[in-house]
Order: sequence, then C-alpha cells, then structure tokens
Amino acid sequence: MGNCLIAQSGGPTSVINSSLAGVIRANQLNPIYDRVLGGINGIEGVLAGKFYDLTDLPGYEIKILKQTPSSALGTCRYKLKRGQETDFVKLMGIMDEHDIDTMFYIGGNDSMDTVDALSEWAAAHGSDKRFVGIPKTVDNDLVPPDHCPGFPSAAKLANLITHATRLDYDAYTRPEVFVLETMGRDAGWLAASCCLSGDVDLLVLPEIDFDRDAFLEQVQRKMDATGSCYVVVSEGAHYADGTYLSAGDTANDGFAHAILGGAALTLKQMIVDAGVAPRGVVQDLSRAARSSNFAQSRIDVTEAYDLGFSAHMHSADPSFTAQVVGVKRGQAPDGDYNALYFAGAASEFANYVKHFPDEWIKPDYQGVTSEALDYFRPLIAGEPQIIYGKNGVPETVKPFNLR
Amino acid sequence: MGNCLIAQSGGPTSVINSSLAGVIRANQLNPIYDRVLGGINGIEGVLAGKFYDLTDLPGYEIKILKQTPSSALGTCRYKLKRGQETDFVKLMGIMDEHDIDTMFYIGGNDSMDTVDALSEWAAAHGSDKRFVGIPKTVDNDLVPPDHCPGFPSAAKLANLITHATRLDYDAYTRPEVFVLETMGRDAGWLAASCCLSGDVDLLVLPEIDFDRDAFLEQVQRKMDATGSCYVVVSEGAHYADGTYLSAGDTANDGFAHAILGGAALTLKQMIVDAGVAPRGVVQDLSRAARSSNFAQSRIDVTEAYDLGFSAHMHSADPSFTAQVVGVKRGQAPDGDYNALYFAGAASEFANYVKHFPDEWIKPDYQGVTSEALDYFRPLIAGEPQIIYGKNGVPETVKPFNLR
Repeated sequence: MGNCLIAQSGGPTSVINSSLAGVIRANQLNPIYDRVLGGINGIEGVLAGKFYDLTDLPGYEIKILKQTPSSALGTCRYKLKRGQETDFVKLMGIMDEHDIDTMFYIGGNDSMDTVDALSEWAAAHGSDKRFVGIPKTVDNDLVPPDHCPGFPSAAKLANLITHATRLDYDAYTRPEVFVLETMGRDAGWLAASCCLSGDVDLLVLPEIDFDRDAFLEQVQRKMDATGSCYVVVSEGAHYADGTYLSAGDTANDGFAHAILGGAALTLKQMIVDAGVAPRGVVQDLSRAARSSNFAQSRIDVTEAYDLGFSAHMHSADPSFTAQVVGVKRGQAPDGDYNALYFAGAASEFANYVKHFPDEWIKPDYQGVTSEALDYFRPLIAGEPQIIYGKNGVPETVKPFNLR
Repeated sequence: MGNCLIAQSGGPTSVINSSLAGVIRANQLNPIYDRVLGGINGIEGVLAGKFYDLTDLPGYEIKILKQTPSSALGTCRYKLKRGQETDFVKLMGIMDEHDIDTMFYIGGNDSMDTVDALSEWAAAHGSDKRFVGIPKTVDNDLVPPDHCPGFPSAAKLANLITHATRLDYDAYTRPEVFVLETMGRDAGWLAASCCLSGDVDLLVLPEIDFDRDAFLEQVQRKMDATGSCYVVVSEGAHYADGTYLSAGDTANDGFAHAILGGAALTLKQMIVDAGVAPRGVVQDLSRAARSSNFAQSRIDVTEAYDLGFSAHMHSADPSFTAQVVGVKRGQAPDGDYNALYFAGAASEFANYVKHFPDEWIKPDYQGVTSEALDYFRPLIAGEPQIIYGKNGVPETVKPFNLR
C-alpha cells in the first residue's frame, strides 16, 4: 500500500493522542503503510497540504504522546460536510499527491459523518481511497459504543474535583450553596457521572426541562435538612422552551437581574435571589475537564490506544472503509468490566445523539440510579502510571502543529 | 501533662490535614498528652465545647488523613481576636474543664496572631496554658518561613491545569485569548507560580497596579506575533485606586459594559471589547485549587506532616508557647532543596503580608524572573503515592465535623 493520513477533529480530550499513538505504533509493528502522515489542525491543514511525518516517532515519544492531553496534531472548527464537492475533490487530489490510501479520522458525531460521506463519494467516483473513524468525545453521546474515549477521563477529573470541593464546602458551617458546572451541551453524561462520588445533592441535566420552582423547592429542602446543598449542572441545561440556563434567569426577572455567564452562575444567583440561601460558590470545570492528563482513567487511555491499533489492523483488509471502531462492554469471568472491540458502519455513529437514559434519572433533581453508577464505576477506576518532568507536571510532547 | 487541643482555621488546603495527622501520630509515638482533642469547626466549635477525640486514630486512617483535602475538623470564619475578653475567658474555662494544657492552632496570619494574643493573655493572668501555631495558607504570604504548607500543592495544581489548558488552547487555529484566574487576594504567589509551566504569556499580579492600556498593548503584541495570548491573573489584581479588576472594567465604560464576576472574566471582556481579540476563554481555578488531593506536592505533604510533628515535639518543653513552627530553605550536599525546620515567635508570623517580590516581576506583564522559577521549582516537584478507592478517586477520611 501507500501511505496513511491521520487527523484529529473537534474538541480535544485527555486521550485523543493515545488513539494517535496507537495508529503510529501499530504501523511500526506491522508497516502496512509506507508513511504515517499526521494532518495538521484537522481538515483545515490537510486541505492546505500541511502534514507532519509520524512514521518513525521514537518509542519514548509515543509513550509520552499517550499521556499528552489535547490534540497533538492540532484541531480546527472547520467541518467537512456532505455535499461540499469542492473540498471533497481537493482532498482526494491531496491524497493522490501524497500517495495516501487510507485516512483515519479521530472525532465525534460530525467527523464520523464525514468518514461516511467521504467513503460514499469515493465509491461513487470509482476511487479506492478508504476512510476509517476512531471515536472520541467527552460528551459520550455516540450511539453504537458503550462509551466514547475521552469521556472516562473527563468523568474521572469531574469526580476528583467534585469530591475535593465537596470536602472543602463541608468544612464550613455557614449556610451557602455550591454549584459545579460541567461540559455537556446536549447530553448530561459528564454531569451525571459526578454522582459516583456520592457528594452530589442535586443534579440538573439537559435531558430534563428545567423547572425553576421545582428546583428551588428541592434546594430549600436540602438547606432546611442539612444547611447545605451541593448542585451539579450540565452547561446545556435548559428550560422547556429551549432557553439555556446559561442565558440567565429569564423566568425570574429578565431585565433587572439579567445574568451573564454559565449555567452554574445562573443557578447560584437564582438561589440567592429567591432567598433560599444567602450566598453561593461556583466552580466551572470549563476546559480543564477535557484535557487533564493528570486525571486520565487507566481504562480510557488503554482503550483509546487500542482503538488506534484496532483501526490500523482492520485497515489491512482493503475492503475496510466507511467503518468506525468502538468499544462494547463485556464481562470478565470474575464479573469485572472487560472491553470488547468492534467495528461498525460509520453511518450508525454519525448524526445521532445518545442522551443520558431517562430511566437512570431520579425525579426531582435527586441524581441518578444505581444502574447508572454501575455503568460509570469501572470507567473511571484505575490510574495509568504517569511520567512527571522536573517541573512537577506530567511530561508532554511538543504539539506537532507547533513544530 | 493533661490533654492537648488542635483546631484548624481559615480556608482549607490540600495538606492542612497532614499537619493534623502529624500531631496525632507524634503523640502516639510519644504520648506526652493523655488525649489529643480535635476542636470541631475551629474556634466556633471549641467555644461550644465540641471535640472529637483523635488520640487513638488507627494508623491507616492517619495515612488516609494525610491525603484528605480540606479541613477534616471543619473550619469557620469566626476570628478569635485580641481584646475579645469574653471569648478568651470562655476558652480558658473550656480548656480547664477538659484538662487541656496546650492548644495547637493550624492557620494563617490571623490565627498566628490569635496564638500570640492567647499566649499573652495566659501569661498576664498567671495561666500556664500554652498556644502553638502551625502555619498553612495557599496564599504563601507569611513572612518568616520560606513558604507555607498548602501553597506548594495549590501551585502544583495551578501548574497542572495551566499546562493542560495551554495545550488545549494551542490545538486551535482561530484567534482568541485564554485567561486563567487563581486565588490570591493580596499576594500573587499562586498566579506567579503558573509561570513555571512555561506556558504563560502575560501575568497580572496584585503587586503591580493594573494599567489597562499598557496591558492591552501587550496582549495586542502577543496576538500580532503568535495569534495567541495566554494570560494568568490573580483574583486580587487591582487598579491604582485600589478597585479590583473583579469589580468590572470601570476604566473602560462603567455603565454600558458593567461586568459581573471575577478578574479573568473582566480581562477577557476588556480584551474583546477593545477589539484586540475576537473572543476568549476563561478558566477559574476557584476552590479546586486549594483542596485537590490528587495534585498534592510531595514536599508539601511531607513538610506539613513534619510541622505537626515538630510542633508536638517542641511542646514537650513546658516553656514553649507563643511560638509557630516553620520551614526554611536549605541545600542538600548535591545542591538539591532541603527543608530546615525552625520555631519562631508567633508575633513575627502574624499581621504581616509577604508580597511576591518586586525584583522577581518582569515589567510589562511578562511574567517572572529565573530566580522566581528557581524558588518555585523544588516546591512542586514530586508526587506522593496516593491511595485510590474503588470509585476512582483518592480515599479520604470522613470529616470529623460530620461524624
């Protein structure tokens, strides 16, 4: 065969580079491609012919790449979508020019649709170029797999910070609320995962239309019973009319108290304005949640790496295209979690959003059921051995897009 | 002797419990006190006679206590101050009642002043009760010691998140600014420490009056040169007239653009409003910075524990009162950092603020000098071995104030 191309798309995660490392390493063990070319800054750089040759990356650097958070190739917000004929033709031309046979694309729903669309286009135009997807998303919202690489580590960090800040909050006697905000615009997996820590009093998810009065009633109950209330909210939480909480407490008083900022800030202000608690503290995980290598989940980094391997190995079959690799949940003989790897049609990975299941959500913002906890628990258990540098932070590779 | 009392005061840290563990363990090895009584929720609970008997805490729990963040005894915002005669008399009475000979007080500047004031009062009233301070503060602003327990771990977390979020930020191509906010109302040690990661473009400290135009000029330069600008700001940054940045961008347009929130949000909005960058991302470390056991610095947790030991051991001398223990910086034969332990008058620990040194601050928000980095480096290097539980987060003890 000729060469392969690998690119990263969408928001970074703590382990997206582990999938990249997997592809690079797999080709060193079985060099079915002459060169492994990294596309710089996703499709944006690829269309501009910007590559970094990863073929002979030294073993130690591959090891460090696995613990480097964010997208080491760089990413972009440009989406290559179905029907963008000019881009498609241009991409195929660039692939020809660089003798690229297969493109591996690491990304979320949109990227998996791109994999599907490019495969379709190639088939329709008699091209034997192939497109293979490797999933990643901290939102955990792809339908076919049990979970998505990136999510377990984000959930681990969210749990670490939930537990630490709960202890901080519990040290005080004065009445105040604590509101933690996590990423998750359409699906509440990350916010829901925080319940594993056992520290969450109330949980606000995008899956349930927000009811201001019902919520405040629950806060009041907690404050009355214990003098404290620890709330976790997903950034995508919204009212029944679709208005995001982050747009402010419009249900209350859209003009006098228009609130800037995120969902947590809105909830805190809403609680204080309603007189339910005299004050509150807000913690927004923001970007730290998705790129914190010091909080990688061992299963996550292993699976992300293995999925890179799996994608490369499958692609030895010249008919393998329009496919995405993923993980299903199996059980070891002792009942423990065991990852099962599979490949499925890209079309099934694309364009659907897997919401946090309704049947796992307790009513009245009371968190999640034990089934949900059983789902989360094995994903965030276990820590990889991280190599730290002399400045006290984990060693990382210099991003390829900055070399 | 009789019993001893130990209480925690002020904001929690990642290692304040390690000092507590040190006192408990020291008394198990040499039981100079019959009982080690923990005061619940600082002076508030002590004055109400609320204690938890820590004398026989099992070895494993002491080990886990060392890695439990926040104040395991609980804390309070009530300050026992010089001249509060009623409180002093009440406290002495409670100490009599419980046969308490010595009180260990873990806290910051104010608490060290309390140690001094209580010692003075006892001497003036012919009491042989003794008061010993053990320092802690993530602000690192006590004068006599080289640094304060709690700060190194907070600085380690700040560096971990700075490096991770810088990598996340660098993955993108579109122009935007990134602004990270740390704790530090009067002193900029924590914000300054982030420079060790090598990722900070501009640094805004409380030690330098903020100049909006000069700052924006530097942001513009960075954006022009590299298309990116990563800013770290201390929550206490302020204009020459003392107005905090967190009060909003008043220099710009106090009415039309009144900004709610922290210093980082203000800077981001200021940059965007000035047209220097089209958008920005804000990350506020907030509470997570001070109570993150998963980011303990090895030196910090060791020194905090040793200071608990040291305080207990010194107190075997019946004349030891109005004293605080601390760490000075020594050098091992190979040139490496080596902690030297000392005890000094509580009056010297109290009521002064050690600012981040002017001579370590580069002009024009360009960060800190190499001398500053040399100061920070050994403090955050090294990680303790953390014991994780089955839910993927570090094991912690159940707070004594909630038992």
